[in-house]
Amino acid sequence: MQNFDYCTPTRLIFGKGIISHLPEVMKPLGKRILVTYGGGSIKKIGLYDKVMELLKDFEVFELPGIQPNPKYDPSVLNGVRMCKEHNIDVLLAVGGGSVLDCTKAIAAGAKYDGDPWDLISYKVKAKAALPIVDILTLAATGSEYDAGGVISRTETNDKIGYIDPLLYPVCSLLDPVYTFSVPKRQIAAGCADAMNHVMEQYFVEDTTLLNDGFCEAEFKSLMINTRKCLENPEDYTARAEMMLCCTYGCNGILALGNSESGWPCHGIEHALSAYYDITHGEGLAIITPRWMKHILNDRTLPRFVKYGINVFGIDSSLDKYEIANKAIEETYKFFESIGIPMHLRDVGIDESRISEMAHHIAVNEGLDHAYAPLSEKDIEKILMDSL
Amino acid sequence: MQNFDYCTPTRLIFGKGIISHLPEVMKPLGKRILVTYGGGSIKKIGLYDKVMELLKDFEVFELPGIQPNPKYDPSVLNGVRMCKEHNIDVLLAVGGGSVLDCTKAIAAGAKYDGDPWDLISYKVKAKAALPIVDILTLAATGSEYDAGGVISRTETNDKIGYIDPLLYPVCSLLDPVYTFSVPKRQIAAGCADAMNHVMEQYFVEDTTLLNDGFCEAEFKSLMINTRKCLENPEDYTARAEMMLCCTYGCNGILALGNSESGWPCHGIEHALSAYYDITHGEGLAIITPRWMKHILNDRTLPRFVKYGINVFGIDSSLDKYEIANKAIEETYKFFESIGIPMHLRDVGIDESRISEMAHHIAVNEGLDHAYAPLSEKDIEKILMDSL
Repeated sequence: MQNFDYCTPTRLIFGKGIISHLPEVMKPLGKRILVTYGGGSIKKIGLYDKVMELLKDFEVFELPGIQPNPKYDPSVLNGVRMCKEHNIDVLLAVGGGSVLDCTKAIAAGAKYDGDPWDLISYKVKAKAALPIVDILTLAATGSEYDAGGVISRTETNDKIGYIDPLLYPVCSLLDPVYTFSVPKRQIAAGCADAMNHVMEQYFVEDTTLLNDGFCEAEFKSLMINTRKCLENPEDYTARAEMMLCCTYGCNGILALGNSESGWPCHGIEHALSAYYDITHGEGLAIITPRWMKHILNDRTLPRFVKYGINVFGIDSSLDKYEIANKAIEETYKFFESIGIPMHLRDVGIDESRISEMAHHIAVNEGLDHAYAPLSEKDIEKILMDSL
Repeated sequence: MQNFDYCTPTRLIFGKGIISHLPEVMKPLGKRILVTYGGGSIKKIGLYDKVMELLKDFEVFELPGIQPNPKYDPSVLNGVRMCKEHNIDVLLAVGGGSVLDCTKAIAAGAKYDGDPWDLISYKVKAKAALPIVDILTLAATGSEYDAGGVISRTETNDKIGYIDPLLYPVCSLLDPVYTFSVPKRQIAAGCADAMNHVMEQYFVEDTTLLNDGFCEAEFKSLMINTRKCLENPEDYTARAEMMLCCTYGCNGILALGNSESGWPCHGIEHALSAYYDITHGEGLAIITPRWMKHILNDRTLPRFVKYGINVFGIDSSLDKYEIANKAIEETYKFFESIGIPMHLRDVGIDESRISEMAHHIAVNEGLDHAYAPLSEKDIEKILMDSL
């Protein structure tokens, strides 16, 4: 077991109707609020009006239009400018992981005098950040309970995971009802994102019986509840369990004391969505089973065997490689069954830029130090297998 | 799934040698420290000297002699008096759950002008508390990661669980090496305490696949690692996993969104150790299987069946009551196998005060609202069955 230093100070207020707590949550944080959101789905479901009504005693400014794979330019830059111009006290992100991630970068940038990219690219360490509150509308990234965000910079094909303990939300307001209108394709992509977060912590060298059990519970619950959400989008219990499963995805609680995996699938996928702006969860679902097949060997075999038996109930008396290969196949079939396009070509990616992406990943993601080390050639092979 | 409001702000620094972080943890909290500890085992293992050496630049005061089932008089009262007299900035608890629990009551009492019992008995709500840091030497209660403490008042046979969000430790320093010297009887009692914490959250009406998986991982890890610690007290990995398992016991993370059980075994056991000052974990181990047998009925059956199959691997094709009864038997046999005396008579309790205790519990613990409601008669029956 590895040493660790862990603290997640975020308060989670969870359940039906909990949005009524918003004013009391915001009050101690300040009067001037920048509300950040995406393409307007929060208006369709009535959440925007509800938020504005609850914030009637505050001074509210708005940054709409934050896109999936949130962009440094214009969203982060505009947000930082608005915070400085209007002397904002606190940020309220209303939306999914992209809105939240973008809001985190804004929170740090607002308290920094230079170019916010200095912070995101780790050239400069942030000294302060504005407080962040969020109202989540999509179960997926876990950004509501972690200190990180992923920001894309189009002109350089960069997609960087920016992490700083200053960026934990003060409070996340989680009402599963606001996820009822999430369309099926997004439900599936959110599930794949969360499944992969758990995989990146489960497929490691050094783990514990406890952490493995936590992760296996996550896998099983995510699969069963995703199916339920797809069948009946207004199944409160399934939406609620999905939401909680996703919330635990990235703050480390599922794997305290585990060794690091290097988050290889995320490393590879970040290039895919930086170059092609595809949906992150879909990219992960496509990469994952090919990555699994590529790294399966005598050393990694026991992890796949455990995964196969405990998550998919594969007969433990079978040959070990048979169990492992079945487990990989089950993973693929699950993603396929929830409607995810399982080939890069299905999401508009052909072989033309694969070597370029493989090179970019090899240079930037440090995957030669991953649980199963990946060279540029390995990465290229995984991408080619994913076509 | 139930609504919830959750936040555990405590920082966990975990692993071999992490005590070196002590000065940097204490520094922002103040100069004047009251170090609280128990009967001197921390001196035997060299921890006391190490702490004093690390705190050489602070002004250190000491409250030794905190007993198991920590007492309001003298420990809490003396601690509060010392804090006020010496203008203490921060408390450092060095020991197990009893030292920590006592220190929490001192932290609240130190910032209150009246009788600290007003706070513990919930007559008055605390407005502030001194910050608490701890160095844990026993895996058991989970007090290092929750906001509660249990305090006994001998003259009234009261043993009260005192909970207030002000009482989360700022930081818990968890080095499994400091648990190497814990004797076998305490290892077993600590395991039983932690097992029961999980049971009190698992045997409920409304739960989720995710939470059940978390709890089942806890049960399995606690049992396997307790056996390993008993076999080889210096098995670092087993001690470490035990420590982490116990840390999650009481802060709610294993069961967010579950309905409440009413913590029936704790309600009953608190009277046993208030009247007879027995070891809390042993009392719980004795009560638990008798409580299980008593509440098993058509309504509770599915929980016991799930517990039996997923925790003990009992054949799922058997009759459901057979599975449930086997699961209860396995629970009993596990506690017995780790050396716990499994009858009240073994720990010096006979029938003489059973009716009196049953009455005390029925009046004070609210178990008529438990998952399986318990009347005074039910409680008396469970206690009689435990003789």
